[in-house]
Amino acid sequence: MEFSLIDRIRQRTAQSRDDVRLGIGDDAALLAMPSGQELAMAIDTMVEGIHFPRDTVAADIGWKALAVNLSDLAAMGATPAWALLALTLPNANEAFIDGFADGFAQLAQMYRLALVGGDTTRGALTVSVAVHGFVPPGKALKRAGAQVGDAVLVTGTLGDAAGGLRMLQQDGRADAQSGYLIDRLNRPTPRVAAGLALRERANACIDVSDGLLADLGHICTASSVGAEIDTALLPRSSALLSLFDDASSLHFALSGGDDYELCFTVPAQRVASVQTDLAKLGCGATRIGRIVEGEGVKVRDANGQWLEPVQRGWDHFSA
Amino acid sequence: MEFSLIDRIRQRTAQSRDDVRLGIGDDAALLAMPSGQELAMAIDTMVEGIHFPRDTVAADIGWKALAVNLSDLAAMGATPAWALLALTLPNANEAFIDGFADGFAQLAQMYRLALVGGDTTRGALTVSVAVHGFVPPGKALKRAGAQVGDAVLVTGTLGDAAGGLRMLQQDGRADAQSGYLIDRLNRPTPRVAAGLALRERANACIDVSDGLLADLGHICTASSVGAEIDTALLPRSSALLSLFDDASSLHFALSGGDDYELCFTVPAQRVASVQTDLAKLGCGATRIGRIVEGEGVKVRDANGQWLEPVQRGWDHFSA
Repeated sequence: MEFSLIDRIRQRTAQSRDDVRLGIGDDAALLAMPSGQELAMAIDTMVEGIHFPRDTVAADIGWKALAVNLSDLAAMGATPAWALLALTLPNANEAFIDGFADGFAQLAQMYRLALVGGDTTRGALTVSVAVHGFVPPGKALKRAGAQVGDAVLVTGTLGDAAGGLRMLQQDGRADAQSGYLIDRLNRPTPRVAAGLALRERANACIDVSDGLLADLGHICTASSVGAEIDTALLPRSSALLSLFDDASSLHFALSGGDDYELCFTVPAQRVASVQTDLAKLGCGATRIGRIVEGEGVKVRDANGQWLEPVQRGWDHFSA
Repeated sequence: MEFSLIDRIRQRTAQSRDDVRLGIGDDAALLAMPSGQELAMAIDTMVEGIHFPRDTVAADIGWKALAVNLSDLAAMGATPAWALLALTLPNANEAFIDGFADGFAQLAQMYRLALVGGDTTRGALTVSVAVHGFVPPGKALKRAGAQVGDAVLVTGTLGDAAGGLRMLQQDGRADAQSGYLIDRLNRPTPRVAAGLALRERANACIDVSDGLLADLGHICTASSVGAEIDTALLPRSSALLSLFDDASSLHFALSGGDDYELCFTVPAQRVASVQTDLAKLGCGATRIGRIVEGEGVKVRDANGQWLEPVQRGWDHFSA
């Protein structure tokens, strides 16, 4: 059973990576590490009904399960290489497997990522992916390292995924705007190229999975600094702004999870060159605030008033 | 949330491994690979009610989740190094977390294995562990490689875990014999040292997770050979033999899963020296049959009659 399911994905993700000495089909995979690199690894789980809505199509689940993990590598400035997949399913539904494999493989191929091992079991729909990548020693982007005076930037736009979830919950119109937001929810783009471009330039970096306030808060904690951000500067897509009022879209941008943009800090004099380079990569980067002494994230509205955030992000166990 | 749960395990598995350049707490861990080694990696999932009974204590679940993965490394002849943990729980039960962490850490410390990353989510109790280890290039034990004429051996005894599960299901007496079998089910011993000792000596190797017939069948398929085994030679513990009749204990030894012993093949002239060395490691090894031309696993009873097995192992989706 195990191999037949995993094989469907493997067939779609056949990669001619020389470093895969032994792939799927034995008790473990065997990989050759490039010399002079550190190995970056992360694992993330998605559970139906918590990390994706119950009626999400299989291909989107496959894509997103890998995307959220590639986003972790992106946030470290690592180059993706290999993945392991643990897939728990209520039953051996072939159509689901094929769809899942299609979505997973579509994203894997973009990064020449090889699926080298997996396990399939029966149970509530749960997907764990472990990803592995390379980074030159000492060059990884970390959460710690933000310096007082740094500018705080984010790639892309914020709040789209939360807006997309709201549209799904409201059985929203299937127009182009809501379709865009739902696609941002179901098919997030891991900012791998941006992460690589930020190596040796960003002082601290994280991906926005739990919401800007929560994730920038992680940078502040790890770096023993505070941050101030201005709501007027938060990048919001035209789709989000057209479908939601200002208060809602702002709430989504501050506290919505699942955007998988990068939030990072750079010395102020480096902002322009970083923005130029990230614009070339197609995601852009917007300056949203600054690192200050102290602790925690403070938010200033368009009138210069400090806000009291009510929801700082997602905590799956407090929901 | 994530870090608080994973931290409880990390605190119990604090390892001073020089190769962990960045452990739990960032978007990914950073590891330094030893030069001249290949990286072996595997992932396995355990689901409550399928891979362990619903009333299994947390410490046993933590132990077993790691043990089944270390067993995969053992079957490759790899030295364990690092693990990632994806833990899905119905609720944030502190007692469960502490118990799980105790069991996981107890086994991890035996192998100086470092937990370097993790993710906790809410959902049906599901545990995925990804393990990573080292093996010299070209020296890994594989399923392919069994040669006609090889002897087939297994470490330890077979059928104990299935016997233990039966005792639990029958609400068996809590005597020493049934306790031994239940312990074999809940706290399997990964045969890591045996796997290392078999490098450059065994032609093929697998761990017995799905049952002897199924797993030896995997060796046969991968090696394009057949195997003949004799029931009279199957190593069965005195506990198993004292609690079950011959037919039941034989069935468990042939088809019961979850023993996590190693099944391997060696040239006939090498059997004695391998047995001597594995005996020194405390697990012993018993010759149970031979590799022959053809395909599949054939079983001969004590009277020399060929048996027709009714159950070849576990398939979680056909159960």
